[in-house]
Amino acid sequence: MTTDAQSRRILDAVDAAFDAQLAFTQELVKHPSLRTREGSAQDLLYAAMAGRGLELDRWELDPAELAAHEGFGPVTVSYQNVTNVVGTYRPAAERGRSLILNGHVDVVPEGPVEAWSRSPWDAPIIDGWLYGRGAGDMKAGLAANLFAFDAVRAAGFEPAGRIHFQSVVEEECTGNGSLAALLRGYRADAVIIPEPEEDMLVRANVGVLWFKVRVTGSPTHPREMGSGFNAIDAAYTTMAALREVEAKWNVARTEHRYFEDLDHPINFNFGGIAGGDWPSSVPAWCEFDVRAAIYPGISAEAAWAELQDCLAGLARGGNPIHAVATRTGFFAEGYVLEPGSAAETLLERTHEQVFGTGLESFTTPGYLDGRVFTLYADTPTLVYGPVSEAIHGFDERVSVESVRRITKSIALFIASWCGLEERG
Amino acid sequence: MTTDAQSRRILDAVDAAFDAQLAFTQELVKHPSLRTREGSAQDLLYAAMAGRGLELDRWELDPAELAAHEGFGPVTVSYQNVTNVVGTYRPAAERGRSLILNGHVDVVPEGPVEAWSRSPWDAPIIDGWLYGRGAGDMKAGLAANLFAFDAVRAAGFEPAGRIHFQSVVEEECTGNGSLAALLRGYRADAVIIPEPEEDMLVRANVGVLWFKVRVTGSPTHPREMGSGFNAIDAAYTTMAALREVEAKWNVARTEHRYFEDLDHPINFNFGGIAGGDWPSSVPAWCEFDVRAAIYPGISAEAAWAELQDCLAGLARGGNPIHAVATRTGFFAEGYVLEPGSAAETLLERTHEQVFGTGLESFTTPGYLDGRVFTLYADTPTLVYGPVSEAIHGFDERVSVESVRRITKSIALFIASWCGLEERG
Repeated sequence: MTTDAQSRRILDAVDAAFDAQLAFTQELVKHPSLRTREGSAQDLLYAAMAGRGLELDRWELDPAELAAHEGFGPVTVSYQNVTNVVGTYRPAAERGRSLILNGHVDVVPEGPVEAWSRSPWDAPIIDGWLYGRGAGDMKAGLAANLFAFDAVRAAGFEPAGRIHFQSVVEEECTGNGSLAALLRGYRADAVIIPEPEEDMLVRANVGVLWFKVRVTGSPTHPREMGSGFNAIDAAYTTMAALREVEAKWNVARTEHRYFEDLDHPINFNFGGIAGGDWPSSVPAWCEFDVRAAIYPGISAEAAWAELQDCLAGLARGGNPIHAVATRTGFFAEGYVLEPGSAAETLLERTHEQVFGTGLESFTTPGYLDGRVFTLYADTPTLVYGPVSEAIHGFDERVSVESVRRITKSIALFIASWCGLEERG
Repeated sequence: MTTDAQSRRILDAVDAAFDAQLAFTQELVKHPSLRTREGSAQDLLYAAMAGRGLELDRWELDPAELAAHEGFGPVTVSYQNVTNVVGTYRPAAERGRSLILNGHVDVVPEGPVEAWSRSPWDAPIIDGWLYGRGAGDMKAGLAANLFAFDAVRAAGFEPAGRIHFQSVVEEECTGNGSLAALLRGYRADAVIIPEPEEDMLVRANVGVLWFKVRVTGSPTHPREMGSGFNAIDAAYTTMAALREVEAKWNVARTEHRYFEDLDHPINFNFGGIAGGDWPSSVPAWCEFDVRAAIYPGISAEAAWAELQDCLAGLARGGNPIHAVATRTGFFAEGYVLEPGSAAETLLERTHEQVFGTGLESFTTPGYLDGRVFTLYADTPTLVYGPVSEAIHGFDERVSVESVRRITKSIALFIASWCGLEERG
């Protein structure tokens, strides 16, 4: 363990560089790294890692290679120029434990800009909050990973274990970015992912499936509307049928460890809709996008089969609906962070040291790349990060002081997990 | 009136040229004259009118000029190169009554092509039906107007009254095409529009309003879905509220002459929908297209005010919905063809002569350009045309033998309405 004096030096170093850390975070937010457009933000991170003397690796994701893995999420875009960036720190002599500090660089769309109080890409700091799309989810975390490491070194130490800084893509749609890093061979004794988790540790989360449902029928002129199938109406009927599956799955929460006490852990989100060709033609088709959640331990295949059954049932009803689902992204299972790992025990200590309160863990009904390392590399993965508001919403923001403390906690974690060498 | 012998010559002439008429109709169907893309079909009609020695007029619609008229439908497209074509026949001495033979060249979108048994643009004739988008609605009618006129001349006569052949655009979205022809100065003693009306005459029809409703709110991450406004759900609630207005208006049918006996004369069609930006973001916006119908005698402004009130009410509910409507096309009132006009009396005769049965009239819950001539030029307008199936649907088709008889009926109408001169 790090001594109190060592800790003090590291914590002071976080404070000393904190303005620079915020400036870097702001610069990162100013790059609208929407899906497939992460390039310039990755350039910035690549340069930041290069400036720190890390060993650099940047590669384009290969859908064919990924598709062979059970955790793969089907891809509806081109991966040309869609790259992961990993910077590796190697100690002169590797005596400590190794660590992956992971974060995703992709952000979700900003939505209607007029609904924001200001541009989603200006990244101002106002009243203790850093604003912007991706500020919380999760550019503050990406920056925290690097600046936590900086603080250890600025305090006069070198970590004694190998560290991989991963800036991955595709966390918001498939999870293929972290999966690609795993397939690239990156492994470590623990993983930290500073997603915006309200200064808490994620104990369990859901898996997520993405799919598109296309409802079709035969249109007519509105003058004979009664005789025509209306695909927009049928889409809503289809959504209602899926809501019944959602309700059934929520009832089953009592059977799932860490989900028993949640109100509504399984959320089906209908996140997009499109249909019809002409105001005066009864719509012949309607498509909608579904994000469905599943419990850890439920395979994506089993959930998919149940969802398909639900849709097939609509074709057998009195007013048959032809609804076909296509997988469009996440096909990911949830995970549980088993309590008692050395990594978690250490984080409890560093958290308490910085926050002065015990580390709370919780279950989140959202997707996390933590599943990649937990399910497919059996690595304790600590998803643990700052307080945020309105992620995926308007005026997304992250708490500046929370970011400072999370950075400090990660810095102390690095020091104790990897061990320290005094710099010569 | 035309003598039996004259009629016989005219009817034979229709039969003699009927193969050519079908071939011309097929050629017309092969031009996908979707909105703003009517150019090549208009070229064909222009050439057909030129070949008949008509006086030609082709002009681009002027939204600014049209907008000053109460019957104008707001325009969401450019009218650049969007043209009406009118060909005028002038007798050597104008002794008979004048006539407008009107038809629209624009067609509604074909919808998903895979739902058609064959291409919507191939125009085959199979088992007595001519297939294709626009075959019934209303290229068969446009051709019938010209070939009815041909038959009169091929039989050795010249009509003694002026005739304007109008091929107009915008009938499927605003009605601005016929309105532009009216504003251009074209007037006559009667109008025939051979829309696909099942060998019947339209006695009354509805007005139509087009508008887009945008529903907005504040999105979130699905993990906190309960707290987020879902615009796709709210759109459905908004549609349900509009359906209540529709139901109320349908109850009022007993107060509207010619609508008392209809089951559901007022149809609101939700013909298009789009919303949401990301499957894993609760949708912040959803837009849908509405086609609403109103009774003759109800002003578009009054109906619009009631629809606006309905939407405003949603903002005052327990779960307030912000729904804003924008006019996107038709802002058109319905009309009644008053019985007893000389034109109708004549059509009854020519119809019976050809079909051997009495002319039936009916009320249609669809928009018709007839309103332009009826409401704004006080001209008896006979919307009367062939048997069709699946207009605005898949495998749209028009009955070949019905087209033949309608053409004959129109030819006899021309002869008696305009009067005949034997050709020298």
